Amino acid sequence: MSDALVIFMPSGKRGRFALGTPVLTAARQLGVDLDSVCGGRGICSRCQITPGYGDFSKHGVRVAPDALSEWNAVEQRYKDKRGLIDGRRLGCQAQIMGDVVIDVPAESQVHRQVVRKAASAHAVTMDPATRLYLVDVTEPDMHEPSGDLERLAQALRSQWDIPAITAGLDVLCKLQPTLRQGKWQVTVALHKDHRDGPHQVLDLWPGFYEGGLYGLAIDLGSTTIAAHLCDLRNGAVVHSAGVMNPQIRFGEDLMSRVSYAMMNPGGEVEMTHAVRAGLDALVAEITVDAQITAREIMEAVIVCNPVMHHLLLGIDPVELGQAPFALATSDALNLSVRDLGLSAMNPSARAYLLPCIAGHVGADAAAVALSESPETSDDLVLVVDVGTNAEILLGDRRKVLACSSPTGPAFEGAQISAGQRAAPGAIERLEIDPVTKEPRFRVIGCDLWSDEPGFADATAQIGITGICGSGIIEAVAEMRMAGLLDASGLIGSGAQTGTARCIPEGRTHAYLIHDATATGGPRITVTQGDIRAIQLAKSALYAGARLLMDEIGTDQVDRVVLAGAFGAHISPKHAMVLGMIPDAPLGRVTSAGNAAGTGARIALCSVAARAGIEATVTRIHKIETAIAPRFQEHFVNANALPHAVDSFPELSRIVTLPEVNFNAGDGEGGRRKRRRG
Amino acid sequence: MSDALVIFMPSGKRGRFALGTPVLTAARQLGVDLDSVCGGRGICSRCQITPGYGDFSKHGVRVAPDALSEWNAVEQRYKDKRGLIDGRRLGCQAQIMGDVVIDVPAESQVHRQVVRKAASAHAVTMDPATRLYLVDVTEPDMHEPSGDLERLAQALRSQWDIPAITAGLDVLCKLQPTLRQGKWQVTVALHKDHRDGPHQVLDLWPGFYEGGLYGLAIDLGSTTIAAHLCDLRNGAVVHSAGVMNPQIRFGEDLMSRVSYAMMNPGGEVEMTHAVRAGLDALVAEITVDAQITAREIMEAVIVCNPVMHHLLLGIDPVELGQAPFALATSDALNLSVRDLGLSAMNPSARAYLLPCIAGHVGADAAAVALSESPETSDDLVLVVDVGTNAEILLGDRRKVLACSSPTGPAFEGAQISAGQRAAPGAIERLEIDPVTKEPRFRVIGCDLWSDEPGFADATAQIGITGICGSGIIEAVAEMRMAGLLDASGLIGSGAQTGTARCIPEGRTHAYLIHDATATGGPRITVTQGDIRAIQLAKSALYAGARLLMDEIGTDQVDRVVLAGAFGAHISPKHAMVLGMIPDAPLGRVTSAGNAAGTGARIALCSVAARAGIEATVTRIHKIETAIAPRFQEHFVNANALPHAVDSFPELSRIVTLPEVNFNAGDGEGGRRKRRRG
Repeated sequence: MSDALVIFMPSGKRGRFALGTPVLTAARQLGVDLDSVCGGRGICSRCQITPGYGDFSKHGVRVAPDALSEWNAVEQRYKDKRGLIDGRRLGCQAQIMGDVVIDVPAESQVHRQVVRKAASAHAVTMDPATRLYLVDVTEPDMHEPSGDLERLAQALRSQWDIPAITAGLDVLCKLQPTLRQGKWQVTVALHKDHRDGPHQVLDLWPGFYEGGLYGLAIDLGSTTIAAHLCDLRNGAVVHSAGVMNPQIRFGEDLMSRVSYAMMNPGGEVEMTHAVRAGLDALVAEITVDAQITAREIMEAVIVCNPVMHHLLLGIDPVELGQAPFALATSDALNLSVRDLGLSAMNPSARAYLLPCIAGHVGADAAAVALSESPETSDDLVLVVDVGTNAEILLGDRRKVLACSSPTGPAFEGAQISAGQRAAPGAIERLEIDPVTKEPRFRVIGCDLWSDEPGFADATAQIGITGICGSGIIEAVAEMRMAGLLDASGLIGSGAQTGTARCIPEGRTHAYLIHDATATGGPRITVTQGDIRAIQLAKSALYAGARLLMDEIGTDQVDRVVLAGAFGAHISPKHAMVLGMIPDAPLGRVTSAGNAAGTGARIALCSVAARAGIEATVTRIHKIETAIAPRFQEHFVNANALPHAVDSFPELSRIVTLPEVNFNAGDGEGGRRKRRRG
Repeated sequence: MSDALVIFMPSGKRGRFALGTPVLTAARQLGVDLDSVCGGRGICSRCQITPGYGDFSKHGVRVAPDALSEWNAVEQRYKDKRGLIDGRRLGCQAQIMGDVVIDVPAESQVHRQVVRKAASAHAVTMDPATRLYLVDVTEPDMHEPSGDLERLAQALRSQWDIPAITAGLDVLCKLQPTLRQGKWQVTVALHKDHRDGPHQVLDLWPGFYEGGLYGLAIDLGSTTIAAHLCDLRNGAVVHSAGVMNPQIRFGEDLMSRVSYAMMNPGGEVEMTHAVRAGLDALVAEITVDAQITAREIMEAVIVCNPVMHHLLLGIDPVELGQAPFALATSDALNLSVRDLGLSAMNPSARAYLLPCIAGHVGADAAAVALSESPETSDDLVLVVDVGTNAEILLGDRRKVLACSSPTGPAFEGAQISAGQRAAPGAIERLEIDPVTKEPRFRVIGCDLWSDEPGFADATAQIGITGICGSGIIEAVAEMRMAGLLDASGLIGSGAQTGTARCIPEGRTHAYLIHDATATGGPRITVTQGDIRAIQLAKSALYAGARLLMDEIGTDQVDRVVLAGAFGAHISPKHAMVLGMIPDAPLGRVTSAGNAAGTGARIALCSVAARAGIEATVTRIHKIETAIAPRFQEHFVNANALPHAVDSFPELSRIVTLPEVNFNAGDGEGGRRKRRRG
């Protein structure tokens, strides 16, 4: 027998190979997805495989114990140094000596699937733009002179089939010493654009590089900036962190920032500096917390709304503040972080900005579309990304519509009397007993409810400091369900509601959640102003969704996906009670978490996904809320808090109290009329 | 008759067109080279043509007086405002109304030929990387949202067949206000790479841009930096200037700069700053002198030797100082001037660096090859580019060899006692009467010889300040021909030479050219040290040329081209007497002027030339002088000043004196033996 049958699992690819052929070589010839950074030099151990021995009659083979060459010194050295699971072999060392079935474990696949989120079990196939390659470069020969870069290009062409490379001056400056230090063997980080064009050398190291290779998925919101540090070799999120957007001092919502730029010459430059400094600080913090170096961060995918997009790029957002809301550029951008003025990553790192859909529907909406794929949905799905500006997508595989709605920052805890961002000590869950009207709550950083034993001790360190976005939504909905609010949103007095927790505050009332003033702590209430802020925010959200439903010609959606920087924390039940979203079966309202951030992470892990969303975006139909007369109408009509029992049978299990009306003649009741039901 | 025959001259292209078709439209359809920036809007007047009327029987047509539509208001307005040569029409306005012969004048051709130099009458076809395009951009529509950049791209695609564009952040930042200021009509400067890839928007202006569009051809030498400002619309050189390379303070020759980088940590950074600052200062000076703005300079083509190449890029040149003389990169580079740290041009301007041939044979040699095209020569041509480092090319259409030789800065007037750079007041021509031994000379800035009436008055302002490169070459050769030097290069005493101008200076003698010390002016002499410096320089030059001749297996070249920053000023006769170059018929020694600069200018005017030289360079065979044992041998043998009468019949008309020998036993005579003859 001079050759043998090799079957690779799970792909099932098979072929006959000469005895002595390394498993990695056979895999490459068959196009089997088996990783290798070192190219078969026995250094990187990425090509681990598990041979199967015995009877594989379903494949028509019987595998003898000596089907692979003997365990060798290179494998033993690797096992001694780093460990190797029993039964595993290195694909570059083990040679085919007889018919064999080879199992390629998930972690040895280049294009392995990354489970995106437990809920939907959608998976992303790893195909990052930046990968590492170990190459041996020919030494210079003065009789055949050529540049070191050109010989590196030649090596990548012959050893890795990389057709062409470019390198910036940073890389050129370190190329010669690195090649010589590595004795003409170097590891290069290559970035491929998903459009045509040469691979770009982002960095290189002498010999085999054992350090990390990371990317950042950044959700640059108007109020908060969230970043996830991903390992570009396996897609794992290794660290997440967030900060307030330092632009808040120029205006809490987008339009006030556009106004700032219009009213203050150079204002957009100030805001650009602020957001870039904020990003740098966040990245620097992540670098420290994740115990990595700036140099190891090779990429960032950034998603944001159009105003943040322009301000990040340094473009005056003035056109986004007035019809026809023209973007300077809407296509996806692939930039150097240096051009973006960001300095806390590898200086050659690349920044990818997803495309903007329209002047009010940004790269964040595109990222939500990438994460939730409404264009592949069989049923009509409403995706609502809740933030200072809400991005709303409605559609199915036939058609997808998109709009944005200016909800303001209330959902993120801003403009709320006791509001704060989601951080330890913030109330994030809240229930009000419908009979006693007493609240119980949970704060971030503690798993106990406030009425459970040990809560006081458990929160002694972190304190009870305020109420975050998801907490205020639950508080308002619970107040409504407990009969503390009427349909117009008016807080009843203690006399009306029968609880001393409804206390006077000016001409209106407030509901007292927690009072620690006796011990020098804060007094946390929900004021009438807070209710109004939430009503405005939820009306804007609801009106946007209704506008898209009108456009598609429906009164009913099949399912609702709640997303947002704090989307994972919004209780669908409470959102429904509040009337944030249109009617849908409660069981079909799901939380997608930070879908924009997830979309950013998908784009970070897959260049194919980048090409995909760029194509999808061109097919999404955009609706401009700012000029739609019906938007205003929907907005006004949505102000009330729906009478859940009547209009919403499914919620009747939850909302058990009869309608209350605290209308004290302050005129608030006039707007109570709702279009729905 | 519903259509008519149109014949375009000088191309002879012909076709039939419907009556009423504008001439520009007909030209475009036939692929006739007729310029237009405004695309036929009657704004730019680049499409001027001259119709011929009467009998064109050789073309088979008779042209009636009404073959073109009547002179119209647009043409009259243009003529009133800017003037128009009688008989000229605007091709976009004049419509075809009958059979006609249309002459396209040279200045209306996009790809017109630019006469490169009077001497060789080689011509370059204009095909610059950067061109202007006037476009009308669709206004934004909030119902069909797209970015302004994407609509600009669409306009360029539909109006100019430009497939794809990119724009940097600078351009993105000014895109929106410019489009609105121009009422959706803008002129864009587009840069095309000669490789594939999108056109890059370098700049844009509202409406029709009437300003300039310039490029710089920069010859970055070790000692001097010369720059030519070219009008990118017609190839004309509108201004030239030069400065000393500020790196000189780190070492006069290349190897001393490499040593500086090796000996001083961060030394290469200092030198990079110095040369970039020098370039910026030179460009700023040109901008002022040519009365243009920095923004109008869109491109620079830079040619230089490998050490300057690396130092300009910020790459440590240490590898270039030791075998195997590996370049960090040898391919041509197309960079942003911003990446090069240059700030005196348009911030989006591009810099193109020609490819390097080898570690000692740089982009300057490639530029010389581009200018002189030895690879297309029928006879064997030796091209010598004289500078601090001499680049030498030898070959014909079968094979081209290249090397460089370290001549040092003597030929540029440095290391010469009275040396100075070529500037007003410098002696550039010199003759010595063979009988009286009296000199006569000319200085830069005055057309009179020093013995002509009025010379003193004419030079009173500029003075007689020193001696430049071409002057010292003539001085040494004339001294030899006048019998003031022996074959070893020794200056005779007054007693030996019979002239009081040979004066003692230490243990040797000097020849007095000009003495103005009585009036506080300088005393200009040629010292024994000067002779030795010139001997070393010319020996290096000669040895390099001989090495290539050995390699190609010849003792004789068919012709010699002298080039260099001051190449136009070198007298072939004197170069021959000095033995700078190998034997060739005197009539076949020509000056090419600054061939490297010319090559840079060609690359500036033609992207095709860039592609061409990049291909040519790969076929040039490189010879490394530093390791060739025969180079040293040739160098030592070339030290003497050849006995021209015996060995060089053609020069006998010039060199009429018998051999002299002033050997005073100082040992100099020992190296007098020459290989030649």
